[in-house]
Amino acid sequence: MVVRAGREFLAIPGPTNMPDEVLRAMHRPALDIYSDAMVELTDGLLRDLSTLFATKNRSFIYIANGHGAWEAVLSNVMSRGEKVLALESGRFALGWAQAASGMGIEAEMLPGDWRRAVRPEQLEARLRADRTHRIKAVLAVHVDTASGVINDIPAISRAIKQAGHPALLLVDAVASLGCMPFEMDDWGVDVTMTAAQKGLMSPPGLAFVAASDRARDAHRSANLRTPYWDWTLREGPEHYQKYSGTAPVHLLFALRAAIDLLFAETLPHAFRRHSLLGEAVRRAVGAWAEGGVLDFNIADPAERSDTVTTVLMNGADPAELSRYCRDHCGVVLGTGIGEIAGRAFRIAHMGHVNAPMILGTLGAIEMGLRALKIPHGSGGTEAAINYLGDNVKA
Amino acid sequence: MVVRAGREFLAIPGPTNMPDEVLRAMHRPALDIYSDAMVELTDGLLRDLSTLFATKNRSFIYIANGHGAWEAVLSNVMSRGEKVLALESGRFALGWAQAASGMGIEAEMLPGDWRRAVRPEQLEARLRADRTHRIKAVLAVHVDTASGVINDIPAISRAIKQAGHPALLLVDAVASLGCMPFEMDDWGVDVTMTAAQKGLMSPPGLAFVAASDRARDAHRSANLRTPYWDWTLREGPEHYQKYSGTAPVHLLFALRAAIDLLFAETLPHAFRRHSLLGEAVRRAVGAWAEGGVLDFNIADPAERSDTVTTVLMNGADPAELSRYCRDHCGVVLGTGIGEIAGRAFRIAHMGHVNAPMILGTLGAIEMGLRALKIPHGSGGTEAAINYLGDNVKA
Repeated sequence: MVVRAGREFLAIPGPTNMPDEVLRAMHRPALDIYSDAMVELTDGLLRDLSTLFATKNRSFIYIANGHGAWEAVLSNVMSRGEKVLALESGRFALGWAQAASGMGIEAEMLPGDWRRAVRPEQLEARLRADRTHRIKAVLAVHVDTASGVINDIPAISRAIKQAGHPALLLVDAVASLGCMPFEMDDWGVDVTMTAAQKGLMSPPGLAFVAASDRARDAHRSANLRTPYWDWTLREGPEHYQKYSGTAPVHLLFALRAAIDLLFAETLPHAFRRHSLLGEAVRRAVGAWAEGGVLDFNIADPAERSDTVTTVLMNGADPAELSRYCRDHCGVVLGTGIGEIAGRAFRIAHMGHVNAPMILGTLGAIEMGLRALKIPHGSGGTEAAINYLGDNVKA
Repeated sequence: MVVRAGREFLAIPGPTNMPDEVLRAMHRPALDIYSDAMVELTDGLLRDLSTLFATKNRSFIYIANGHGAWEAVLSNVMSRGEKVLALESGRFALGWAQAASGMGIEAEMLPGDWRRAVRPEQLEARLRADRTHRIKAVLAVHVDTASGVINDIPAISRAIKQAGHPALLLVDAVASLGCMPFEMDDWGVDVTMTAAQKGLMSPPGLAFVAASDRARDAHRSANLRTPYWDWTLREGPEHYQKYSGTAPVHLLFALRAAIDLLFAETLPHAFRRHSLLGEAVRRAVGAWAEGGVLDFNIADPAERSDTVTTVLMNGADPAELSRYCRDHCGVVLGTGIGEIAGRAFRIAHMGHVNAPMILGTLGAIEMGLRALKIPHGSGGTEAAINYLGDNVKA
């Protein structure tokens, strides 16, 4: 316990660190929800969310988390008994498919692997075999926070087109939006969903959806629509319809402050920052892995995300390392979840993170590896420092 | 600018990082300053401050900074034309002596060196030469935040006694109290002063003084007493006299939260934490120093404080390094001040600091040394990690 007094380092993949500006933004009275100021707040946020999704289409704000957004997406475009194909590469496409099943949708998994990204050619083959076009939509996760993978959404989109299949492409960008490039329109994504508590640096409680014209067409005949999630109802003339009731004013104040910070930094800059910090983490893990115990969960370096790194511990106990980092250093690591629970830990590097936060986190992990005598290659944090020193020019 | 978005790392030697609990404590209405709750708040703080000073004597709370506390101390025990001897080992005993001069006190410096601690034997010799006991008080600084030195207050106290001299020992513990052991009564200190914004993790604006019986005796005949600083007036029967007017309620709320945190950690634990983190910084600087450019300002390792490390840069520009750390990484280093201005930077490791904050700060400095191509021995941050990993047991 001796060196943890100080600011807690939250290195979990969401909820992420909130900037003080975001916290402060919530410390004020609510707006009159019928005021012009409230309408302006909503309009500005919806416009900016579409910019974040890189779409000309409209966005929707839900009081919900990511699981809620899954349901929002499905209920607006699907009918009971229709079929989705979910692309496995970790835990979250599976979770989305299970949500679909629970709503009366037939859900098929395209088998994949926890240690690699979705293979677009397998998707293309499966869709070609679906001659009757039973598959109404493909569910893809951009970054899976369990496995640490990044899927190639443009390639997945191309695979659908090359198969000549009309399936909608529905994408979960919860763990990537605001951190890595995402181009909804250019990539041909039909619906994108995300949430407030990762790259958008806001409190959990808000989810966001954007829909293409093709998705709006599907929406018209979808019979799973419910009053809370329904896009058409949310576009009614009254402002309160935008939120299907009371607006979550304080969460919106927080989101406004967070998006202002992100736009002030500029998106290309934030993406570059995540790429630098993600690579710094990978340099450290790569050096540690030489000890034969630690290893990347994602085997192919090109498939590792810039927002979260999942580290396998072959034989050593990740809970001991996490406990050391938390109790002795004040660094909270993510645990391994799903099929690698008990065999992995995760380092999040998304949202409000800078070089000293990442280097401090890596330093604490390296302290723990040493204190716990877990075999590891030396110089992991140093490799991260050297990489950043070489790439962040004076 | 690419990797600085994230929480700012404040590595300056005061004001230091404030815990969120301290910030939150101020976010409430003031107390009725005539209420029992206000009296209880004051009584509890005064009792706890005496515990922090390790004295059975009473403490005083001033709305002031450290410079104000210097004046509070001097005005309560000195008369116009009396003489003090200030012990040079950096900038702050000199500053205190200048304040004395400005108040009509004769101030003599015991010459010292910016690169080493006060030599008690020189003090003893000077006092022995003062046969008429013209020197009324000795001004000593425990930790000088400019030079990074720690002075041996018990040895200084012994030197006064061994010289058979009646001088009062007045000590500035601004940069040590709450971070390193301080034993006012055991060490024979007559007056100790400190301030809120360093080891006490509170906003600048409060200063604290504790006085021994010998100091109280001197107080009776002191003619520099003024209404605002006067101990006797502050001990009058009315509560408002404790603050010579309106109590600084919100600063007191903050201080209450900070001392609660410190006591919850326990003082021995906080001292050990500072010792571990201070040594970690020294391991890093020691490794970097092998490149021939960086060097410790304090030559003797035993005289380096556990709260701030002053690093000389022989030939390289510390402003460039500080700019890199601030603009590119979000780490704010202390600048060199006084006679080493423009030739040094400072790393504070006091107050609300833990392993990842220190390792993140060191990592950012090492990034900067690399990016700026400033010659430095490699493996500085790694040496800090290894030291902490070996000494913070699982």
